[in-house]
This record gives sequence, structure tokens and C-alpha cells, in this order.
Amino acid sequence: MTLTGKMLIGQHATTGNREAIRAVNPATDTPMEPAYPGGNGEQVAKACALAWAAFDGYRETSLEVRATFLETIAAQIEALGDELIERAVAETGLPHARIQGERGRTCGQLRTFARTVRAGEWLDVRVDPAQPQRQPLPRPDLRQRHIALGPVAVFGASNFPLAFSVAGGDTASALAAGCPVVVKAHGAHPGTSELVGRAVAQAVQACGLPEGVFSLLYGSGREVGIALVTDPRIKAVGFTGSRSGGVALTQAAQARAEPIPVYAEMSSINPVYLFAAALAARGEALAQGFVASLTQGAGQFCTNPGLVIGVQGPALDRFIRTTSELLPSCAAQTMLTPGIASAYDSGVGALTEHAKVVAQGLPATGPNQGQAHVFVTQAQAFLANQHLQAEVFGAASLIVVCANNEEVRQVSEHLEGQLTATLHLDEDDLPSAKALLPVLERKAGRLLVNGWPTGVEVCDAMVHGGPFPATSDSRSTSVGTAAIQRFLRPVCYQDFPDALLPAALQHGNPLLLRRLLDGQREA
Amino acid sequence: MTLTGKMLIGQHATTGNREAIRAVNPATDTPMEPAYPGGNGEQVAKACALAWAAFDGYRETSLEVRATFLETIAAQIEALGDELIERAVAETGLPHARIQGERGRTCGQLRTFARTVRAGEWLDVRVDPAQPQRQPLPRPDLRQRHIALGPVAVFGASNFPLAFSVAGGDTASALAAGCPVVVKAHGAHPGTSELVGRAVAQAVQACGLPEGVFSLLYGSGREVGIALVTDPRIKAVGFTGSRSGGVALTQAAQARAEPIPVYAEMSSINPVYLFAAALAARGEALAQGFVASLTQGAGQFCTNPGLVIGVQGPALDRFIRTTSELLPSCAAQTMLTPGIASAYDSGVGALTEHAKVVAQGLPATGPNQGQAHVFVTQAQAFLANQHLQAEVFGAASLIVVCANNEEVRQVSEHLEGQLTATLHLDEDDLPSAKALLPVLERKAGRLLVNGWPTGVEVCDAMVHGGPFPATSDSRSTSVGTAAIQRFLRPVCYQDFPDALLPAALQHGNPLLLRRLLDGQREA
Repeated sequence: MTLTGKMLIGQHATTGNREAIRAVNPATDTPMEPAYPGGNGEQVAKACALAWAAFDGYRETSLEVRATFLETIAAQIEALGDELIERAVAETGLPHARIQGERGRTCGQLRTFARTVRAGEWLDVRVDPAQPQRQPLPRPDLRQRHIALGPVAVFGASNFPLAFSVAGGDTASALAAGCPVVVKAHGAHPGTSELVGRAVAQAVQACGLPEGVFSLLYGSGREVGIALVTDPRIKAVGFTGSRSGGVALTQAAQARAEPIPVYAEMSSINPVYLFAAALAARGEALAQGFVASLTQGAGQFCTNPGLVIGVQGPALDRFIRTTSELLPSCAAQTMLTPGIASAYDSGVGALTEHAKVVAQGLPATGPNQGQAHVFVTQAQAFLANQHLQAEVFGAASLIVVCANNEEVRQVSEHLEGQLTATLHLDEDDLPSAKALLPVLERKAGRLLVNGWPTGVEVCDAMVHGGPFPATSDSRSTSVGTAAIQRFLRPVCYQDFPDALLPAALQHGNPLLLRRLLDGQREA
Repeated sequence: MTLTGKMLIGQHATTGNREAIRAVNPATDTPMEPAYPGGNGEQVAKACALAWAAFDGYRETSLEVRATFLETIAAQIEALGDELIERAVAETGLPHARIQGERGRTCGQLRTFARTVRAGEWLDVRVDPAQPQRQPLPRPDLRQRHIALGPVAVFGASNFPLAFSVAGGDTASALAAGCPVVVKAHGAHPGTSELVGRAVAQAVQACGLPEGVFSLLYGSGREVGIALVTDPRIKAVGFTGSRSGGVALTQAAQARAEPIPVYAEMSSINPVYLFAAALAARGEALAQGFVASLTQGAGQFCTNPGLVIGVQGPALDRFIRTTSELLPSCAAQTMLTPGIASAYDSGVGALTEHAKVVAQGLPATGPNQGQAHVFVTQAQAFLANQHLQAEVFGAASLIVVCANNEEVRQVSEHLEGQLTATLHLDEDDLPSAKALLPVLERKAGRLLVNGWPTGVEVCDAMVHGGPFPATSDSRSTSVGTAAIQRFLRPVCYQDFPDALLPAALQHGNPLLLRRLLDGQREA
């Protein structure tokens, strides 16, 4: 398939007339063809108008039609074959195996949402039948379901060119909820985005859906993004990226005449706690696990372990020593973009000013490679210096040495919101862990025992979210089936005749949903 | 019980040192004793510190303890007896029967949330068991529950001195979710607030809960409110009041270092559609119902029918004529406060400039009485003048005469977000209603057929919410059991040993919850 450099406004391939973005192969530092001219305000408005026109029809498609659509997108992505893999590898510097795995995750995610759509629990159907005889006043018949919020703007992420980009988690959950989607592709992988965008557009056509259900835009600066978020027809935003970018979009969304929700997944350093007994029993193994998790994918995960917390003593010394022995043999890895590589270097530079270097990985041997770094500091220094908890996106981490459990608690209370917090513990650590748990529940969306935070399962129970600045809305997850709830709102129907009720609420319960009927959940 | 004019900071009755508020009996325009000096910043901070200290313990109380607490609050409110009724009547000008009914609703609401807490569905427990053999990677054990957001600031509403004030819907749902509550009493009914506040504080003590679970503050200006919303220990806000007040709180909450959700229920004019066949069949009866709903409680309901929409013709003329015959015998009624009465007069004055008066109720015969008003205008004039859809809080309504169904649609699309939309229809109107329904679903949180929007049932299926400016967050309801969801966030536990898991997630399912287990809902 020849890449065209064109946007997709509904089914129409359209060329922008603003400054072009162009992928750079980060492994070779060479720009790639074609150029992707950015969209202008009119083109953004056109995509939003199509999305708006498609909304009422799309949100009322049957559960089966919508689920089939999601499955068709997955099939169309798979049909792109190796071309997609090659392009994504070239645009991101990520290894083949990783991109292949990510394609599997992306298609699996779409099929998981298809299952969720069919199950229909997201409709949250509640029925309180009329009580005409009730005193002092009769009760009317009241029925609630959830409906889609409206067209959703999705911003592709740099670090998941498939799983959190054009047809990634935000798009899949918004489409599942019944929301048309307008994607702004991430500038780092426009070719990958075009391929996937065309796959989605083909699925729209194959399923006979209105074309406005999906559009794909490019843009080099903030123009397209701000135009999208401030378009009155856009009713919610999904974003994965930097804290500054997420905060800017949230502020733009709040400044609208009609403010809208923004789900921005932004910044997290993912504290890892090494409890005493675990550290004493297997400090070396923990160091091995840590270094592997830290350096995986050049450390370019939202859940990268950027902070390690332990109590001083020989066991923690051994962990640090083992880390300092392992890290020097870790190869520098190509980062996603020249911008990310240089931001990583700056972040490492800043940490170097404020903390002591424990160890470094092998130096870069090619362009845009990130050299792993581990630093160490004392708890009091950490508490005194807010810079030390700024996310450094890449394979950099800071070990915070605490004098005792009380300092561990102080450091924990001092942390900003996180996506994850990890506890390494043995039986004897349970009392200490239990004491710390309330703090961690307040701070993070996912808590792990004896694992590593990298690796985010797409399932019903996943929470990929957390208090600010991990996300802009701690009430939600961006990974897993509960992500659909971000794009829904409840509507109540009072005393409606069956002929006017949506199928989900009709008296005969034709969708066979387990409703909350008069306060009782149906079997 | 002697009223003291004191705030409750936890269990401590404390006198503020800022400008005092003082209730005014609106029926007689006389100030009432005692004065309620406003709190200062330190006192706000103290209440928030107590709430924070109580949070971790309170949110992990058992379902039974928390449900019993809510029931105890209800019992303590009932134990206040007639003193509460008398004081609320005097402070609000509302009739005895209304206040008695509202007490019943308030206590019923607390007991309904107790039932919801015990049922435990709000925990939304999801379990994805480990799959150690899965290829290419094993799946860890993942378990999700919802936990409380943190201390909640609640702002009492003027028009529901019991049901949406100190122990009203916001407080009940926040306490049900496991959030401590700091209430800022509405300045119009401080004595009612003190009585109810003491009932809640007694329940806190009787149930052996930490004192910070509940505090009650007074304040005459915005100082206390802004201090509350910007205190870092407050994690969510519940508010019912004006659009300007709600927007100001939302902006303050968004400007925090850690932005927090604000649930502000603000402004709605609740369009009522009169479809042709219904209008032809029973125009007079519709006019009777309309006038009754409009003038109930001096029109001081969020769901008051402030807009009536129909297609021109003899049937609509008859509706208007009947309205103009009925309204002149409707007595003027005492409004809640002098401020509300004068704002009503201004609102009526503004409508008089832009629309034609159809009829007026009887003029005021005492202080602070609102004279009912119905206006009429043409659809094109309505579309051209944004002032015509500003809420006038009180018994004022505007009839919009449309040339045809297309104009009805245009007017509907032009509307801002609403709490309710009402359809009066007969069998023959079903096609027209069906065509309009998608617009109304986008505009409002509750849709009614052949009823009147005043009267909000507290039940599972209720939605008292809607798109901006009806509320600041259309994804929620402030009335009904789903209101609990506003104060929760999901947390995922990965590979936790049973000893460290909360009861809701333990392997043995000791709370007997119907979990979403490996994608299937348990029976």
C-alpha cells in the first residue's frame, strides 16, 4: 500500500496545507517519506461536522453492529500484514517483536471491547417500575441507561504507535461507547497512523456506518489539537503524553463555553517499595528484576519504575551494589524520537545535579540512544527537592534511601499521584506493607505485589489511571474494559411508552440485560 | 434545643470571627436569632485536617457500619421533631407540609443510601484470576474495587433546606462512598443547618466514628467556600445553586495544583413539548397541569418548567388562553430569601423586555412574594436572543410558538443543557416525538412523557443531572443512588496475597458480592 501523506476526513483522503510533519527513523536519524501536511481549521471543522452528523445514528447502532465493527477494525489491521510492522519499526526504533506484540494487543483490545459491548453491562440499566398506589404520591415508571457523550478527540501516543494511537485504547473504548472519533495522529509515526487509519476507514465502509464515525488528522504544532478540543461538537478528549501537553488540553477544554471532560494520561514515576525481609532474602534477584523492568523498551513506558524506596542497611546496599554491577552491561537503546532522546538527556542531566549516580548503562553507539541511569539520594533530600520527583521519560530511576519506616511513609505521602505503586515483600513484611497500604491506595491506580509495573494487562480489572498528575481524572482508567465508562452519561426515561423506549429499556428486556430492577439485580 | 450560632468542627462547637450570617424570615422580612459568625481560614483548615485524619479509617469501615451510620443520621434528624420543622418553615417561607415531606425525603434518602452501601454494587468488583500458563506471557492476578475519593466539600442549597443541604443528597452519597464531608451551610437557613448538623455529629459519636467524618461551617461571603474548595485535603465538591456560583467553584477547583472534580447542579429551564395530537385532545388539561407545576413551591425548583414549546395553531392558542385564564387566580408566594425574590423580579423584568406577557398571577400581598408570570414569543425571536433561555428562578415561564416541527427541532438544538425535557404526546404524536428524541437525549438528563418535571424521585434509575450548564459534569446524577459514583475511583490490586487484600477482593468473597469474574458476572 502506497503511503499518501493524506488525512482522512470521513472517507475522503485530503491533503492539508499547513506545515508538514515527517517521520524520522530514530535509529538512523533519517527523515522518511512521505511528508504529512498539517490540517487547517476548516479541515478540523469538517471532520467534527461529519462526526457530529454521524453521532445520533452511530450511538444507536445495535450492540451487535458495533461489536462487529470493532472486530472488523481488528481484522483490517491484521490484513495490513508486514507493511504495518516494518513501517512502525522504522518510525519508532522499537524492535520487531515488540511491534508484533503490540499489534496483537491492539487487535485483542478491539475484540475485548467487542465482547464488552455485546455484554451490555456498560448500559447500567436500572428500572424502577411505577407504583400508582403509593402514598402520598404515586411513583412514576423510571428507567435509566447510559448513552454516548458525543464525538471524541483522540491524541495518539508516541510510545504505543499501535496500542495507544489511531486504533488504540482510547479510540476502541470511545467507539465501543458509541462515540465517533477524530484522531490527531502523533507526529512521530504518521505512516503507521495512515495505515491504521485506512484500516479503520475500511471497516467503517464495510460495516455500512456513517463516514463521520472516524477521521484522522495531522498537524505539526498545537493548532490542530486546540482546534479539535475547542470545537463545540467534540464532547470528550482522550490523550496520552506529557504533563504539559495534558494540562494545556485540559485548560482549553475547561475554557470552552461548554466545558468537556479530558482524559489525559500524563506523568508517573511509579514508586517501587523494597520491604526489609524481601530485600534481605533476595536483594540480588530484586536488582535483576529492577534493571530488566527499568531498561525494557528503553524505559519508554508510563509505568517505568522511576523511583525505588527502601530502608538503609546492608540489604539495601546489596541491592544497590547489584544494580551497579548489572546496569553497566545494559546496551543503550534507540529512543522513539530525537526530541524524546534529547529530553531524556536533559532529565538525566537535571537528576545528576540533584542526586548521586549509582550506575550507568553502556553509552550510546548510534543516534538517539538513551543510556540507562540509576541515581541515589536520601529521603530528606528527596523531601526537600520537588525536582527529584519529575518524570524522566526513559531508563532513569532514583533510589531513595530512608532511615526507617517513618521516613518511608513521609516520602510516600510526599509523592504526587501515580499510575502504579509496587511492593516487594515477604511474609514478615506484611505488617509494614499493611500500614503503608492506605497511603498507596490514595496515591496510585494500580498496586502490585512482587512484580514490576511495566506490562499493563488489557482486562476487566485493570486500572491504568490515578490521581493527578498521573492522569487528569482519577475516576477513570484508560486501559481495560472499564475505559468505556469515560465516554458515557446516564439518561433517565420517565413514563415512556414502550414504543418510544430504546431497546435496552423496553419492558420485555429484548437485550436480555441483567437490570437493576426495583433495587434488585436480575439473575 | 437552643440554637448556638456555632459551627461544628468535628465534635467541637466553635464560634467564627468573620461577618455573621443571620436568617431572615422571608414571610415577615424579620431577621432571626442567633447570629452565625463566619469561619476563618484557620477554622476551614482545621475542619479539613480533621476530615483528612478521618479519611483512611472511615473509608475502610465495613459496609454494615457505614450503612448503620446513615440510618442513625436519619433517626437523629427525626428525633429533632417539630423544632426542625418550625425553624425550617420560618427560615425558608416554605409551607409546613412541604418541609415535613422534605424531611421524609431526606431521611428516606439516607436509608436508601444505606441499602445501596450494603448491596455493595458500587464497589464494582472485578476479578481476573492469574493465568500462569498463558503464552507469550503469564497473566497476573488482577482485582479491582472502587474506593472513596477523599474528603468532600458540600454546599447547601437554598431551595432544599433539608434534602439538599447539611444532610441532603450530596452529603448522604459522599458519606455512603466513604468520604468525610465538610459542609458549608447555605446562608438562608443557618438554624436549620445547625440543628441537622448536630444530628449528624451525634450520629458520628453514636457510631464511634472519627470526629472528622463531618464538620459544618458558616460564612457570609465567598471566603469560606473558596478556602474549602482550594484546601489540598478536599478531593471533590458537591454544589447546588446558581450558574455563576457553580462556575466560580469549578474554576477554583481546576486552578488547584491538583485539580478536583466539582459536581455543580446549576441552571435549567426544563423545556416542555406540547405535541399536536395531545394539544388538540387536552389543551385545557395541559394548561392546568402546567400552571400547577409552574407555581408549585413558588416555582423554586431546579426542574421548574421554564419553557414550553409547541406548534402554532388553534390548539396551542387554546392552551395559551387557558393558561391566561388560570394564572391570574394563582396567589403570589413567599420566596426563600429577599435576594431570591429580588433576583426573580429582575429576571421577570428582563423577560418582559424581550417577550410578551401572557398572564400574571395575583400580585404580592406580603414581603418577598413572587408573582407568577407566563410569557410568549416566536421561535425565530427565541433563536435570535440568548437572554430568553436564561433561567429565571421562580414561577416564570416562556411559551415558544413554532411555525412547524422543523422550528421545534431548531429551537431544541439551540437549547443549552437541561436537567429535564418533557414530552406531552398521544399515539399520533409518536413519530414526531421519536424524531425529536435524539436531540433531547443529547440535551437533558431526564426525559418525561405526559408528566411534569417538578418532583424528583429518589431511586436507582433517577438522573438529576445533564449537560452544561444544567450541571458541571453530565456523567453524573446528584439525586438517586447512582450519585454515590461521583465520589469513587477505581483501584487495581495485582498479585496481592489474601492477607493484604481488602475484604471486597479476597478470594473467598466474604462480602458475597456479585463480582465480574474472568469476564462473567457471578450469579
